Amino acid sequence: MANATMDAAVLTELKHIELQELGIPAPKDNEVLIRVRAVGLCGSDIHYYEHGRIGGYVVEKPIILGHEVSGDIVAVGEKVQNLKEGQRVAIEPGATCGECEHCKAGRYNLCPDVEFLATPPYDGVFCEYVAMREDLVFPIPDGMSYETAALVEPFSVGVHAITRGRLDAGESVIIMGMGPIGMVTAAAAKMAGARQIIGVDLEQSRLNTAKEMGVTHTINLREDDLAQKLNEFTAGRGVDLAIETAGSPKAVQGTIFSVRKGGRVAIVGMSPQDEVPMNVAQIIDKEIDIMGVFRYHHTYPKALEMLSKAEINIETIITDKYTMEQTADAFEKAIHDKTNTLKIMIYPSGE
Amino acid sequence: MANATMDAAVLTELKHIELQELGIPAPKDNEVLIRVRAVGLCGSDIHYYEHGRIGGYVVEKPIILGHEVSGDIVAVGEKVQNLKEGQRVAIEPGATCGECEHCKAGRYNLCPDVEFLATPPYDGVFCEYVAMREDLVFPIPDGMSYETAALVEPFSVGVHAITRGRLDAGESVIIMGMGPIGMVTAAAAKMAGARQIIGVDLEQSRLNTAKEMGVTHTINLREDDLAQKLNEFTAGRGVDLAIETAGSPKAVQGTIFSVRKGGRVAIVGMSPQDEVPMNVAQIIDKEIDIMGVFRYHHTYPKALEMLSKAEINIETIITDKYTMEQTADAFEKAIHDKTNTLKIMIYPSGE
Amino acid sequence: MANATMDAAVLTELKHIELQELGIPAPKDNEVLIRVRAVGLCGSDIHYYEHGRIGGYVVEKPIILGHEVSGDIVAVGEKVQNLKEGQRVAIEPGATCGECEHCKAGRYNLCPDVEFLATPPYDGVFCEYVAMREDLVFPIPDGMSYETAALVEPFSVGVHAITRGRLDAGESVIIMGMGPIGMVTAAAAKMAGARQIIGVDLEQSRLNTAKEMGVTHTINLREDDLAQKLNEFTAGRGVDLAIETAGSPKAVQGTIFSVRKGGRVAIVGMSPQDEVPMNVAQIIDKEIDIMGVFRYHHTYPKALEMLSKAEINIETIITDKYTMEQTADAFEKAIHDKTNTLKIMIYPSGE
Amino acid sequence: MANATMDAAVLTELKHIELQELGIPAPKDNEVLIRVRAVGLCGSDIHYYEHGRIGGYVVEKPIILGHEVSGDIVAVGEKVQNLKEGQRVAIEPGATCGECEHCKAGRYNLCPDVEFLATPPYDGVFCEYVAMREDLVFPIPDGMSYETAALVEPFSVGVHAITRGRLDAGESVIIMGMGPIGMVTAAAAKMAGARQIIGVDLEQSRLNTAKEMGVTHTINLREDDLAQKLNEFTAGRGVDLAIETAGSPKAVQGTIFSVRKGGRVAIVGMSPQDEVPMNVAQIIDKEIDIMGVFRYHHTYPKALEMLSKAEINIETIITDKYTMEQTADAFEKAIHDKTNTLKIMIYPSGE
Repeated sequence: MANATMDAAVLTELKHIELQELGIPAPKDNEVLIRVRAVGLCGSDIHYYEHGRIGGYVVEKPIILGHEVSGDIVAVGEKVQNLKEGQRVAIEPGATCGECEHCKAGRYNLCPDVEFLATPPYDGVFCEYVAMREDLVFPIPDGMSYETAALVEPFSVGVHAITRGRLDAGESVIIMGMGPIGMVTAAAAKMAGARQIIGVDLEQSRLNTAKEMGVTHTINLREDDLAQKLNEFTAGRGVDLAIETAGSPKAVQGTIFSVRKGGRVAIVGMSPQDEVPMNVAQIIDKEIDIMGVFRYHHTYPKALEMLSKAEINIETIITDKYTMEQTADAFEKAIHDKTNTLKIMIYPSGE
Repeated sequence: MANATMDAAVLTELKHIELQELGIPAPKDNEVLIRVRAVGLCGSDIHYYEHGRIGGYVVEKPIILGHEVSGDIVAVGEKVQNLKEGQRVAIEPGATCGECEHCKAGRYNLCPDVEFLATPPYDGVFCEYVAMREDLVFPIPDGMSYETAALVEPFSVGVHAITRGRLDAGESVIIMGMGPIGMVTAAAAKMAGARQIIGVDLEQSRLNTAKEMGVTHTINLREDDLAQKLNEFTAGRGVDLAIETAGSPKAVQGTIFSVRKGGRVAIVGMSPQDEVPMNVAQIIDKEIDIMGVFRYHHTYPKALEMLSKAEINIETIITDKYTMEQTADAFEKAIHDKTNTLKIMIYPSGE
Repeated sequence: MANATMDAAVLTELKHIELQELGIPAPKDNEVLIRVRAVGLCGSDIHYYEHGRIGGYVVEKPIILGHEVSGDIVAVGEKVQNLKEGQRVAIEPGATCGECEHCKAGRYNLCPDVEFLATPPYDGVFCEYVAMREDLVFPIPDGMSYETAALVEPFSVGVHAITRGRLDAGESVIIMGMGPIGMVTAAAAKMAGARQIIGVDLEQSRLNTAKEMGVTHTINLREDDLAQKLNEFTAGRGVDLAIETAGSPKAVQGTIFSVRKGGRVAIVGMSPQDEVPMNVAQIIDKEIDIMGVFRYHHTYPKALEMLSKAEINIETIITDKYTMEQTADAFEKAIHDKTNTLKIMIYPSGE
Repeated sequence: MANATMDAAVLTELKHIELQELGIPAPKDNEVLIRVRAVGLCGSDIHYYEHGRIGGYVVEKPIILGHEVSGDIVAVGEKVQNLKEGQRVAIEPGATCGECEHCKAGRYNLCPDVEFLATPPYDGVFCEYVAMREDLVFPIPDGMSYETAALVEPFSVGVHAITRGRLDAGESVIIMGMGPIGMVTAAAAKMAGARQIIGVDLEQSRLNTAKEMGVTHTINLREDDLAQKLNEFTAGRGVDLAIETAGSPKAVQGTIFSVRKGGRVAIVGMSPQDEVPMNVAQIIDKEIDIMGVFRYHHTYPKALEMLSKAEINIETIITDKYTMEQTADAFEKAIHDKTNTLKIMIYPSGE
């Protein structure tokens, strides 16, 4: 495909995305070239679109966003051994170094040299083609849709959250926030055998959808009292595991309050403020474990297995679908209709 | 119920069970009295019936067998706080000391002073009433049958096996032996999110039933080659976890062979011989973990949750039902019709 | 010893301790009677003395304080099997129920029904004799002093802290607060193979003593900058494990700041306020594990082994010794000379 | 150093080593060139020398042996960031792919594509210079000798064995075989806080040396009965952890016998036969964990910390020193004087 070009949706300045014609990337020896089929719009994409930065990551030049992605292999580098043209695949978006202390320890999500799609200065996949290292490309089963394959990325966050939270089958879980991450975390917990899964949110419509994603009990904080409902649902014991996905200080505090003695907390959601007052007396008295959750590591094979023939249809969270030409519209919809928007899917190569 | 009597099926000598009229036990302050509803017949019961001993445990006087049990609370000791008359319950059969190093460490199944139902010199529950310590009696949900509640006991072995084997959602498992323990282990693995569950046995009828218990792939060793099938099912990788429930040296060897590099083995089944040749070269090269599994600890609350509204009907393994008067017949059926008999259920208080 | 009496130092009202003559307790069947030899004065004793309460535990009637204790067995209950008169022993002060979910899970320190020495309404051991359940009484080696045996109690907190913090040999640790608990935690970390142990305090004299307890580097927050010193000591990486024993919000915050990516935090010290602002952004970005530490469980055999022939003399932290008659003086010294007082030892049966 | 040559001790045929003049390797961009200072002679080197193969690894062309190695950096590839000329270093000998499932999971010792020094077809370091990837080269502290730095490699096996065996401070350990690996494992256990370390061997001289390596109790199987001694040393309880380094079926069996209920076994030593009869009844009854140990992963930083200012001098195990010219003599000594030879050190660049 030398000299060939592709379309890409490029963020050229804050809140401005335009379609550009760019060169198709050439896969290196250990890479494959993938025609992009479906890409989910993530909260981080939206944050870069609106604010141009997340923490220390700053958009300093035009960038292609998007990192929840599936597609078809269309070309294969010379040294690629396990993949071949024509395979339908899900893509893990972070290329890690393999040589730092964290990579060596198996926690490669902490690799300081990671090159992560759509995290400045690295481009993402709101475009027709992407070249990826072989080890980050995972063939998907015949029956799996491109949408589900793209959702393996956020689902991986849920899988990692329950892994960090050491969820056991038969346990009870509360999940703060029924946005897309809360939803896929509920699905992961359900598939891993959690029996009581309490979903917490402010929007009844989200809580309703949550019931299709594995949630067995809901608490609507607009109407319900957390303490009273929790008491009712757990007979005063509290839950085994609380997972924070809302990115809200009150939700963080709710996790510590909600777990039983000896319980565990996993914190996924970034609060707007760095510091959150946490009840240390309860952390000690109940001897709680609190685990930070940052992206995921080594989840793709497991997550693909879990989603294959799953009892839960993870595509339930997709509320909107757009062509790549409509990428800007997709961002605007996500920003201005939060209540009705869960996951938006974009199709760079046509639907 | 002072002076009242009850019927009990007593093993008075090898292979001889007779119905006797015995005094109803009086519950101590911290005990409840339970009217026995359903009791599963376990392989260990049969072994005591036929051979009068298991390892160092020797039947030296008449004994009541049976320890997989559910019933109704009919009386409550003075200091009992959390239970009340009329509750339908499952019973954990081992009363441990709470004070030895193993109890203190949370592995009370290793308690040397355990008093376990139907393990000499302690009587079991093929009788109308039994008194049990409060902490060993677990109320069951309204919708759960006495049969399922009785099966919590063997199911607990399966739950403990996957816990010891550190099964994660999305992983692959092979289970050697599709007897009752293999069956419930498959169910536990399925509920905990295992996706590929390979059942291995010599009897096709058992393998057929296994498919209702969560098994996704079967290997019939009468016809199939383990290595070839495993290769086919796992694309040459091997499984994440292998569980031995067959009690056969070849099955033990098969577990080591079947796991992937870095895989885990859990051994539940007692082989007829103590020593089994194991491939130490593979244990080292693949850096396998092998875990012995002895009964279970702290599984009842979790197991009850798992079985409540389960996608798998654990009663599928019940092949025969008998009244207490027919207890001797039940043992004879179990011994002489192994092929068609999985779990036999006995009803000491009428069905 | 029927009808015999003993002396006891009784807290009759806030800040008032008086010597009373009380009956010697009669050991139950499963208890031993112990002549008390050495008792350490703990921060919680002082807190009850000054304030009459800790959290929900309120002194509502005269109480004997003291729970860090060693002595000699002088009588043995009828059912006691493993202990005999004349043995020198350390005493674990919390009698737990053995039957609740936490006891069953091996985390008996979370038992809601624990009867803990010197925690209202239970008396402690500033008295000549105490009766204790057999399983809480641990014979000590010949060469071990009564003082060291009494210090097994606070040392157990340190052992539990490094266990909860999953300290590995060869790792680096920072310990906030060089009071008695910080000191014994340093000793535990050293004995467990930590190589770099950074002690942090405001008092230089404590930091000097800390060097005899295993601390290899010190930070005096009166003079040094935590960030700068940490950077210097760890070459910018941060430590593997941070342990909070100071009971100060700033110290809690320092732990999160100090650990490397993927590091662990153990929080032992109760801050004066329940809620402490914690940097959730760092908890997520560095994917930190934070573990509450409440007392300890199952540490005595291990702790006694560690202290036996130890390279560190744990008695180094004893700064003052008093007779039981001087118990009130001991409390006043602890309160009014904090700088020079680490651990005070009291001898109820004469030195 | 283009065109420069170096001396190397090459195994040209079975049991025949000759000195050859070879080209000095050129370091790639991400490699450093190291002048080799000290190299330990390992059992695997001897096995290749005598038999030309270990399992599936076959010597098919002349090979340079040796992989326990330290030296000085003399040149640095263009992309090397963290190392510089002149640094004294220890070398981890296995270059793993960083991209397979095992590397991703942090268990890179299971990487099927590892290029391991002195494992056919890869050359080792009985030569003056070697080029190594940056991430496998670890600077050593000023006070550490080249010998100790070379011994980090076998010591890493010991560190990995106690990690796999989950050794806790204060625990008891039995180690089967007091060859070099048994010795360094004892040292690792001691540094990690094991208190009772029982060394087992047939040679009294080795047991004597073992006492300098951390062993506290010895069993000479020529004179002592394992069961009787173990009973005496552990008061009938058994040890917490048993480690097999002897490579003998009887030793494997001894580990299972020696551990307490709930104990752990780590198997390091390859027995001459693949299959070893193991007592499965005990594995189940005592609910033992058995862990295979293959090389090590991620141990170098930790091991270097442990050996830095260690209370144990690991060079104690060095019994012989040779120049590179004497490499053939070194092999012959190792083969023909097993009793008196522990670790032989070879100095490719002169002493």
